[in-house]
Amino acid sequence: MRLGHRPSRDKRITTHLCLVARAFGAQGIYIAGIRDDAISKSLDKIAGTWGGAFWVEFTPNPICLLKGWKKSGGKVAHLTMYGVPVKKVIRKIAALEEELLVVVGGEKVPKEYYLVSDFNVAIGDQPHSEVAALAIFLDRITRSLWEEVSFKDARLRIIPSDKGKTVEQMGQKKESFLR
Amino acid sequence: MRLGHRPSRDKRITTHLCLVARAFGAQGIYIAGIRDDAISKSLDKIAGTWGGAFWVEFTPNPICLLKGWKKSGGKVAHLTMYGVPVKKVIRKIAALEEELLVVVGGEKVPKEYYLVSDFNVAIGDQPHSEVAALAIFLDRITRSLWEEVSFKDARLRIIPSDKGKTVEQMGQKKESFLR
Repeated sequence: MRLGHRPSRDKRITTHLCLVARAFGAQGIYIAGIRDDAISKSLDKIAGTWGGAFWVEFTPNPICLLKGWKKSGGKVAHLTMYGVPVKKVIRKIAALEEELLVVVGGEKVPKEYYLVSDFNVAIGDQPHSEVAALAIFLDRITRSLWEEVSFKDARLRIIPSDKGKTVEQMGQKKESFLR
Repeated sequence: MRLGHRPSRDKRITTHLCLVARAFGAQGIYIAGIRDDAISKSLDKIAGTWGGAFWVEFTPNPICLLKGWKKSGGKVAHLTMYGVPVKKVIRKIAALEEELLVVVGGEKVPKEYYLVSDFNVAIGDQPHSEVAALAIFLDRITRSLWEEVSFKDARLRIIPSDKGKTVEQMGQKKESFLR
């Protein structure tokens, strides 16, 4: 769940958060605030090309959603530089059997989010980026599963290359340049 | 080195890149393009509060800088989804004795950057975020050294907290809220 999205200022950061959530193994993202079609469309386009199913949902009342999530047995981890160092809680979180909702905020997250969260987790105690925090957290919690999985129904697939771009398009190899 | 910074569109992404570079152990950042004082000032402010020395330098001719860097014996790693999976090259890069410059791009990075780089490294083969890619790369290459180090001359320091914000200000503990 992405808190504090302001369509005027945060479009690119929120889009990066969606892409990171998808690439590092989340099933979807809740975005707090009013509907912003540009973001949904951009993610649909990505999934159309690169595969997988990833949902984007806007929620006008994120704290209610979180409380409902917990009532139905889910757990909540909130990423904040004020929280407990990730290395101290990652095993406990990774061992959970409940569904996990990860919350990332903007600059000023209200106190109630800290209180409702089962875990307030710090990806370092320095100010940096919610995009980076989400990536590191998902990397740790999945034990880097993103390195092993591929997305279903992709139209394009990258063939790793040390000096170029090689993309396979539905069985046909297409090279943009090579050494 | 951050390529393709457009002051009008990319201020927040570039600022996040600077903060991630600092938090995860880089000494400084080159930003390709014309001087953008808002970014330098924002990083100076962070370093003034949270400590450490981190430099921000703008360069009008990034490819020349890269070639000069290599001529003086440095190595270059370029992060791109088209490159070699990070797990296949990370040991080799981490074992380098030369100074390393990490390049992250915008949407369209010219071919010459792929060719001048010693390593083109993929943090996954899915489109996501240069901010996330930089964080994961620095995390791996430093073996998560950011979890152990603290920044010199900080005015503020966070005391980890499971349900609140606790900040120590030059020896005085200041609590914004606690359970």
